Amino acid sequence: MGEIKVIELKEEILSDNKNFAEELRTRLKASKTFMLNLMASPGAGKTSLVLNTIRELRDEFMIGVIEGDIASVVDSEKVMKEGIPVVQLKTGGFCHLDAYMIDKALSELDVKNLDLIIIENVGNLVCPAEFDTGAIKNAMILSVPEGDDKPLKYPLMFSICDVLVVNKVDFLDYSDFDMHEMKERVKSLNPEITIIDVSCKTGFNIGKWAQWLKDEIDLFQQEDALKV
Amino acid sequence: MGEIKVIELKEEILSDNKNFAEELRTRLKASKTFMLNLMASPGAGKTSLVLNTIRELRDEFMIGVIEGDIASVVDSEKVMKEGIPVVQLKTGGFCHLDAYMIDKALSELDVKNLDLIIIENVGNLVCPAEFDTGAIKNAMILSVPEGDDKPLKYPLMFSICDVLVVNKVDFLDYSDFDMHEMKERVKSLNPEITIIDVSCKTGFNIGKWAQWLKDEIDLFQQEDALKV
Repeated sequence: MGEIKVIELKEEILSDNKNFAEELRTRLKASKTFMLNLMASPGAGKTSLVLNTIRELRDEFMIGVIEGDIASVVDSEKVMKEGIPVVQLKTGGFCHLDAYMIDKALSELDVKNLDLIIIENVGNLVCPAEFDTGAIKNAMILSVPEGDDKPLKYPLMFSICDVLVVNKVDFLDYSDFDMHEMKERVKSLNPEITIIDVSCKTGFNIGKWAQWLKDEIDLFQQEDALKV
Repeated sequence: MGEIKVIELKEEILSDNKNFAEELRTRLKASKTFMLNLMASPGAGKTSLVLNTIRELRDEFMIGVIEGDIASVVDSEKVMKEGIPVVQLKTGGFCHLDAYMIDKALSELDVKNLDLIIIENVGNLVCPAEFDTGAIKNAMILSVPEGDDKPLKYPLMFSICDVLVVNKVDFLDYSDFDMHEMKERVKSLNPEITIIDVSCKTGFNIGKWAQWLKDEIDLFQQEDALKV
């Protein structure tokens, strides 16, 4: 009699990707380049936050951007107008970015001379949460119009992020979004997460977000210096 | 000013996969192992054709099977009952098999001592057509209940196959399936394709299909012998 050998491809692929992501992080530490992986649903405000971050931090840090998108280059064009180096990954249907794809993008950037690389991941709350990109920190945006139940529906995404940016708080007055309830749900999934309310439209708390990111970059570059 | 560098991930991934598939074919030629990639929609009769093929050819050839499925092992169990070595690739959501996945499966089979490996690809007429598995020949099944318009809807799949098995011809009397029209459509996409009408249920033309496959294996093993 024969025997069925079962290979769980998704587990193997995720495991291979995780190992390669660790390699990327080692390289980023060597060049003191902080890489942030920014995830969100379509329309939550990823590109707006990227543009706001560039404007807040461009005087202090050399910044590069990796834009992930299924087909378009619209977001990249906005970043390019800021005079920031940008690589567009067109996934051609894939709904996530993985470490191998990020490596292809990094090879097109002058990584050694960059302090901060922001990955704008594909707009999706499921698949990007599964694939380690090699980033130093993971960030997500939840926008108020999406609803306060999202932590219940996408627990993995909320669990793996270091910071949650709650965007479009200018909509709170016109919405039944329960901020307290949402934060309780998130904290129960991920007690360590930092949560920052912002409005990319009005500029509310953008400085606070930029300060969080600056502190993380400074800490990362100091840690690296201490090791060397 | 910056500049957008665009990386077309799907093209790069397909190109990397194609190169690796060529490596697999070279290894299969060295061991005189004919690998057939069998594709179809869900329910078209892939597992039935695999089982019929095993029964027709098991006296002449050493056979192994690679089963691709998103989650279940039902098909593998049927093959195992025939006493044939089988590897189950659980894709965990992926809708195709690629050469890297097939390589993982081959490492679990005694390839050197096999004459024929049949890949039962994931049930889907889109994605599997894009990814070269490293197979020597590509086969697809179209079943009569699916309709005669499928070549219009999935032209790539019909274009890349060496042989089309039209299954469930026992349904022709109860259907408005136009066999002549369907074959014209297929031939206009792929003039070289072989088309064989069968019924896995009644056994109609299973011998003809098995003979086609036997001739291909014999030719492949002779070609290989001539080169050595």
